[in-house]
Amino acid sequence: MKLATLKTGGRDGRLVVVSRDLTEMTDAGEIAPTLQDALDDWEHAGAKLEALAESLSHGSVPSERFHEHNALSPLPRAYQWADGSAYVNHVELVRKARGAQMPQSFWTDPLMYQGGSDSFLAPRDPIRLADEAWGIDFEAEIAVIVDDVPMGATPEVAASKIRLIMLVNDVSLRGLIPAELGKGFGFFQSKPSSAFSPVAVTPDELGSAWDGGKLHLPLNVDYNGKPFGRANAGVDMTFDFPTLIAHAAKTRPLCAGSIIGSGTVSNKLDGGPGKTIEEGGVGYSCLAEIRTVETINSGEAKTPFMAFGDNVRIEMLDEKHHSIFGAIEQTVEKYEG
Amino acid sequence: MKLATLKTGGRDGRLVVVSRDLTEMTDAGEIAPTLQDALDDWEHAGAKLEALAESLSHGSVPSERFHEHNALSPLPRAYQWADGSAYVNHVELVRKARGAQMPQSFWTDPLMYQGGSDSFLAPRDPIRLADEAWGIDFEAEIAVIVDDVPMGATPEVAASKIRLIMLVNDVSLRGLIPAELGKGFGFFQSKPSSAFSPVAVTPDELGSAWDGGKLHLPLNVDYNGKPFGRANAGVDMTFDFPTLIAHAAKTRPLCAGSIIGSGTVSNKLDGGPGKTIEEGGVGYSCLAEIRTVETINSGEAKTPFMAFGDNVRIEMLDEKHHSIFGAIEQTVEKYEG
Repeated sequence: MKLATLKTGGRDGRLVVVSRDLTEMTDAGEIAPTLQDALDDWEHAGAKLEALAESLSHGSVPSERFHEHNALSPLPRAYQWADGSAYVNHVELVRKARGAQMPQSFWTDPLMYQGGSDSFLAPRDPIRLADEAWGIDFEAEIAVIVDDVPMGATPEVAASKIRLIMLVNDVSLRGLIPAELGKGFGFFQSKPSSAFSPVAVTPDELGSAWDGGKLHLPLNVDYNGKPFGRANAGVDMTFDFPTLIAHAAKTRPLCAGSIIGSGTVSNKLDGGPGKTIEEGGVGYSCLAEIRTVETINSGEAKTPFMAFGDNVRIEMLDEKHHSIFGAIEQTVEKYEG
Repeated sequence: MKLATLKTGGRDGRLVVVSRDLTEMTDAGEIAPTLQDALDDWEHAGAKLEALAESLSHGSVPSERFHEHNALSPLPRAYQWADGSAYVNHVELVRKARGAQMPQSFWTDPLMYQGGSDSFLAPRDPIRLADEAWGIDFEAEIAVIVDDVPMGATPEVAASKIRLIMLVNDVSLRGLIPAELGKGFGFFQSKPSSAFSPVAVTPDELGSAWDGGKLHLPLNVDYNGKPFGRANAGVDMTFDFPTLIAHAAKTRPLCAGSIIGSGTVSNKLDGGPGKTIEEGGVGYSCLAEIRTVETINSGEAKTPFMAFGDNVRIEMLDEKHHSIFGAIEQTVEKYEG
């Protein structure tokens, strides 16, 4: 089943079921007005939504054309957005570029930060920010939405709580990160609002590409209309989603509707840094990583961060080259206040 | 006006208006079923709730006895919990105890962390945790709930968006903090669920004690039945709430219902560390601070962190010694999973 949240309705939009090919939708408001409402009672609402999706696929319910640009993020605001750094390769590279050693514990103990979750961007909305000098970057990631997860849940229990899967653009302000992390309390101003894919899907929609813990498909990132990243989300993911969820739930329960992210998808090449797509590599899922590789290879970063007008598109295709989640596509614009 | 959220109802409880003396309440569900619903449309709902509070004070609406132990946190879950460290004295002391210098910028640039907001504890609920060795501590703080705050808001605009004020127990796991902050991404497992006071109040309820930016009253912290802290929340608060809110909103808007905390309330004594109440001081608002002072004075911390069975009570009294927000009162218990 595929679910989306339309811009019509209140702050939390209006829940619709979307056809597998993303062309048609049917209103799900009688089951649950919003996706959070559905997640709050998934045992009942989930089954009803599945039945509605089945009816939609048979053409036995009224339907309308689905347009991705009418969608908000599936949860326009959420009670939790916790983002891991599961592709430890990415972390190691970034450290290497600044000449720092990465602690060995990073291979066994997940890195995770608590993100702001009150004001997500719609997947086709511009990224409005006041200052290019903040070092505007995208981060293409996978995320899951969980049901209630009890405190202390094992990865096995955590795996059974994954309800929906999405893509994310975790917008980052690289220029603000060093000073902010230097203060010791993690990200805040350096992580403005994120955007999620137009559609969230249940794990069964992914077939064998979803193994219960990882999503084994390339994540397509295009930058200003050109292929920039094709890293496989199932490769080099040191911590799978059940492990990330269990990490998040170690000292507190997670509320239904909590979103857990993978961190920037990143693949190694022959055990070292990757190559651009032009050079025959799988490319990168954020500008920071290509800048890191440039720094390692030539002593300085050449690719600038995003300027006003730059555009990023994030999408994942199935084996038949059909879009699974719809596309996040965002242009950076100057915020005028 | 004073508002509370009863345990009856769904995940977000049921909104009630509470009398100024905290003895009576009346159902507000016809105006807004939940506090978040009210905050989502404060312009209309706020005025109606004020009228209902006026009717309650005249005895012209049906009312029932209000019991603090039937209350959830005013927002049982929220879209944002961002906690500052406005009492820089506290931060400087903690650094001093470990022999570290605090950067001068900490006096001008607020420290703030993004907290988990999906699973707040009720104010009289036990603090259930699996392991005493995590170094369980309370942190008594003030917090405000804001209306929508635009990105880039000035402190002046931010001040106009403060809708409600509460107390917080920001439970902290001191044993997990050093390793977690050492990883560079801020708190996660070291900040389990927080609890808020039974009642949230509008600024006008505080009279002259609220100056639009700070709350000038002692915050009473009792530990295992004995006075432990009486620090004045209006003293030594380097960053007032409008400044903290503006800091949070620098690169993204804040959604109505976002909670912004002050950080642990802490007062200096003659420019240096404070004294216990027994010694004639105003005491402390967390165990870490008394341990820090002990370390500075005698080379080692003597007061242990909380053990299963230990109890903390956090409350604020008005000039007539009446409780303003009701009391947070929590006992630590072993979480059995």
